[in-house]
Amino acid sequence: MVFSGRIARPIAASFSSTTNPLLKVGDVLRKPRTFNHLDLVNYAELTSDYNPIHFDSGFAKEEGFEDRVVHGMLVATLFPRVIASHFPGAVYVSQSLQFKLPVYIGNEAVAEVKALNIRENKKRYLAKFSTKCFRDGDLVIDGEALAILPTLEIREEPFGD
Amino acid sequence: MVFSGRIARPIAASFSSTTNPLLKVGDVLRKPRTFNHLDLVNYAELTSDYNPIHFDSGFAKEEGFEDRVVHGMLVATLFPRVIASHFPGAVYVSQSLQFKLPVYIGNEAVAEVKALNIRENKKRYLAKFSTKCFRDGDLVIDGEALAILPTLEIREEPFGD
Repeated sequence: MVFSGRIARPIAASFSSTTNPLLKVGDVLRKPRTFNHLDLVNYAELTSDYNPIHFDSGFAKEEGFEDRVVHGMLVATLFPRVIASHFPGAVYVSQSLQFKLPVYIGNEAVAEVKALNIRENKKRYLAKFSTKCFRDGDLVIDGEALAILPTLEIREEPFGD
Repeated sequence: MVFSGRIARPIAASFSSTTNPLLKVGDVLRKPRTFNHLDLVNYAELTSDYNPIHFDSGFAKEEGFEDRVVHGMLVATLFPRVIASHFPGAVYVSQSLQFKLPVYIGNEAVAEVKALNIRENKKRYLAKFSTKCFRDGDLVIDGEALAILPTLEIREEPFGD
């Protein structure tokens, strides 16, 4: 299709069927994940974090939890994963994390990454996101992330679980 | 050794050979780690974060890095690991992370967790830590963490690498 006159702006290409949509303020990217025992073992083997609240059900209950808890930082890895999967080449600048509620094995955690602010800088984009994680509608992690994106084109999620 | 008079304060017990020292403001806990290729593969398999800046040397160099970069959140896992290893049962409340410089494969990253503030609350301790990570003396990650500790006794690091 040939555009002419005032309509023929380059940005129009982003709405064609052959290119990806562009990130704009208010857009939300979501990723659900249910953590299992093996995920905790793999995380502990990688990080050497064998805190008994993650591996000893009796200990976790004595500490006031319903059962052993998924490592908070493991749940938080959903945020950079969501950003990197939709914006390959993204570089993390900062991340804040408030751990509000525990996530247990078998719970579905849903990460929601929402664009709050986008600023162009030297042919890159500095994007501020709210990064929230929910479990059955309850907020389990709250925070914000800043990332440098090489493009605003939102790629379809290319990675597996 | 028997203390008497004004010296015989209960806190003196923390300096005996049979009990652990108690955490106090200003104490620093350190943990070095050198990340290798397999660590990045294991992290990516666990989190599905296959951002090419971590796996494609040419891509990383085009983005301005010296080589492919260790996932920032993988480096950041050193902080809860340090806290949990010395205070088993610690519960993370919050963590802020500013990623200042990249960590490359083969670099030694040294996590330093310093007690800034300690407050007793319902037989637990709310401790605020500065969480810094260095590479050859340069600050690569800066931030703070809040954690609830079941005790102020500093356990010897019980976990392996």
